[in-house]
Amino acid sequence: MDPGLTRCGVGVVEGVAGRPLTMLGVGVVRTPADADIGHRLVAIERGLEEWLDTHRPELVAVERVFSQHNVRTVMGTAQASAVAMLCAARRGIPVALHTPSEVKAAVTGSGRADKAQVGAMVTRLLRLAAPPRPADAADALALAICHIWRAPAQNRLQRAVAAQHAQNAPKGRTA
Amino acid sequence: MDPGLTRCGVGVVEGVAGRPLTMLGVGVVRTPADADIGHRLVAIERGLEEWLDTHRPELVAVERVFSQHNVRTVMGTAQASAVAMLCAARRGIPVALHTPSEVKAAVTGSGRADKAQVGAMVTRLLRLAAPPRPADAADALALAICHIWRAPAQNRLQRAVAAQHAQNAPKGRTA
Repeated sequence: MDPGLTRCGVGVVEGVAGRPLTMLGVGVVRTPADADIGHRLVAIERGLEEWLDTHRPELVAVERVFSQHNVRTVMGTAQASAVAMLCAARRGIPVALHTPSEVKAAVTGSGRADKAQVGAMVTRLLRLAAPPRPADAADALALAICHIWRAPAQNRLQRAVAAQHAQNAPKGRTA
Repeated sequence: MDPGLTRCGVGVVEGVAGRPLTMLGVGVVRTPADADIGHRLVAIERGLEEWLDTHRPELVAVERVFSQHNVRTVMGTAQASAVAMLCAARRGIPVALHTPSEVKAAVTGSGRADKAQVGAMVTRLLRLAAPPRPADAADALALAICHIWRAPAQNRLQRAVAAQHAQNAPKGRTA
């Protein structure tokens, strides 16, 4: 998930490192900029709950927020990411955090790649017809791919633990 | 509420501007620093839900977060405050935000008062035997007092609206 108050990107990817990956879903949870902050957080919670209900991911990867950028944007991102982490943790789904540069480096080879490059690689790696729009949606897919590739050992462990808790849950999905 | 990941101060004050105020409750929701962020947010949500269940406040005032201070602290504060605002808004309780300097100015007359001064005034205004500990708890009470004093017109409007929604809810409480 690529969190934000205005647009919260969500991407669901299935697979394991070293094998072709499959996109199961992609989209954006939006909230109106003129609504008050409390209502926006409630709307994000509802939107993310729907995604979690539909895809029942085994892991949730969320962008790690830094406050080095624009102050107002960072606060919104921190608040939206808190809701994303809360929704996942409340269901017992492990949460992984990756920085934007870790994500870019994972899918493009460079931690300073631009959005077009990330979009192009996401399109290629998931064998899509066109880059996902908006960029927040593509970024969410890149985050899911990054997590699957970066943490195979961790994922195997988490899968084993998750399997004990819910043997009927779908396998290998990362939102 | 004075939000934070490690200590989230909660204070419940009943009253209206121009009349003596009454403290109905004060405390702190704590989460272990070594727990992962998702679990900490879930613990904060549970703790705050208990406070809301017990006191059913008509309004929730939350400290407005700025990122001018320590980066790591601010992120945790932004995340904890998101959970506080979410819990209130989900119940249809209006959320008000006040900056730390607005709160200090309201209870001490100076926006740059130190913690001891805020604690002393909270003790006096609520006719307590001693300053509430820790400081986060006193700060939460100061925030509630600030809200009651700063927004009497707004509060009357919100009370009228809230009364339409839930005629049986207790009146005039701010957490």
